[in-house]
Amino acid sequence: MAGRQAVKAYLDLVSQACRAVLIFLKHNKIPHTVENIAIRKGQHKTPEFTKLNPMQKLPVLEDNGFVLTESDAILKYLCAVLCTTGPPYVPDHWYPKLPEKRARVDEYTAWNHANTHTSSIFLHEIGFDMWLVDMTFQAVTLFFFQNCFLCQLKSFKILSRLFQSLCGGRDILKDRPKLLSWRSRVQSVLSDSFDEAHSAVYQIRDKFTAKLSPCSKQATL
Amino acid sequence: MAGRQAVKAYLDLVSQACRAVLIFLKHNKIPHTVENIAIRKGQHKTPEFTKLNPMQKLPVLEDNGFVLTESDAILKYLCAVLCTTGPPYVPDHWYPKLPEKRARVDEYTAWNHANTHTSSIFLHEIGFDMWLVDMTFQAVTLFFFQNCFLCQLKSFKILSRLFQSLCGGRDILKDRPKLLSWRSRVQSVLSDSFDEAHSAVYQIRDKFTAKLSPCSKQATL
Repeated sequence: MAGRQAVKAYLDLVSQACRAVLIFLKHNKIPHTVENIAIRKGQHKTPEFTKLNPMQKLPVLEDNGFVLTESDAILKYLCAVLCTTGPPYVPDHWYPKLPEKRARVDEYTAWNHANTHTSSIFLHEIGFDMWLVDMTFQAVTLFFFQNCFLCQLKSFKILSRLFQSLCGGRDILKDRPKLLSWRSRVQSVLSDSFDEAHSAVYQIRDKFTAKLSPCSKQATL
Repeated sequence: MAGRQAVKAYLDLVSQACRAVLIFLKHNKIPHTVENIAIRKGQHKTPEFTKLNPMQKLPVLEDNGFVLTESDAILKYLCAVLCTTGPPYVPDHWYPKLPEKRARVDEYTAWNHANTHTSSIFLHEIGFDMWLVDMTFQAVTLFFFQNCFLCQLKSFKILSRLFQSLCGGRDILKDRPKLLSWRSRVQSVLSDSFDEAHSAVYQIRDKFTAKLSPCSKQATL
């Protein structure tokens, strides 16, 4: 591991994209430091951060002077660079080199980007007719159960995205046993890194549910 | 070239994602056949097509029995598979193998997906305050002029997306000389394949502008 500088990740764990990056770094034991950027305080819009990422978005990764934005690109870059310059080496199953298998990950990450924005799924789940949530479940079933890769980039991208609804005090998987079982399996593989990355989400959930009346709590949880 | 089966592309050239796939196939002389699926006739929702792609979306690629959806995944898959099993070989500049250079393409395609949906940019350009269009131009400037790769997957993805506004009879680049110059350079490299893929867009534009009054025409074009 000597000789490889720690990467620096600029994150706010309220963002599912940031959580995905942190889980990946921790789970794969990639040497890293974290710079917390609080979106709620507008720290992603300061002149200093704007210089780093003119699009004023999180996450951002710095690797020995190379600055990269967009969580998908960051995760794929880490897989690519650590397959040649490790240790630690990121196992191939995360982002397989075989074109057909890799294409399945790219297919899902592209679909995910275009169809399940965090805010949209969260808002739709809370306010609308569950159509987007159902569409997501259809995709999860299609993309995951037909191609049973448990530990690929797409696994925790979608899981982390679905978890966003916990901020609203709801667990949208609770009546879906097949998906619950899949979540348990992914969580058990990722173990501590998953819970650590989701601590901010759990805190928001707990604050939110503490404010609810006993009646609403029963209906929500 | 013997031994390599032609790939089959299911396309509707009204879709920018489909145009990107066709340009790529033609420009790189990849043996292919095209199956036209007319979205306006609902042909992407037939039981036959749904069996091929349960998400009922275009484009779809079939390569010797391997079925793949999502244009980003399709383009990256073709780069990957033809770098090992060509000819024809797709030149490295389209999707460079060097992690830092590849990450710049992944960064843009991820940003593009999350921020410039075709319908959104089209609707915003026509109906709203140009903010999304301006944001796109900001991104184009950031992602392209800082990293001057003329022929990468991202070049014609964004160009094709910007061209979508032509359906409404407008050329949103017309007052932007720097971007016009960039467009000319990309078009001249892609030459016939670009115009061929955009023929449907040009037809819609011509129909649309033919219906306008002389006054509106002057304001629009």
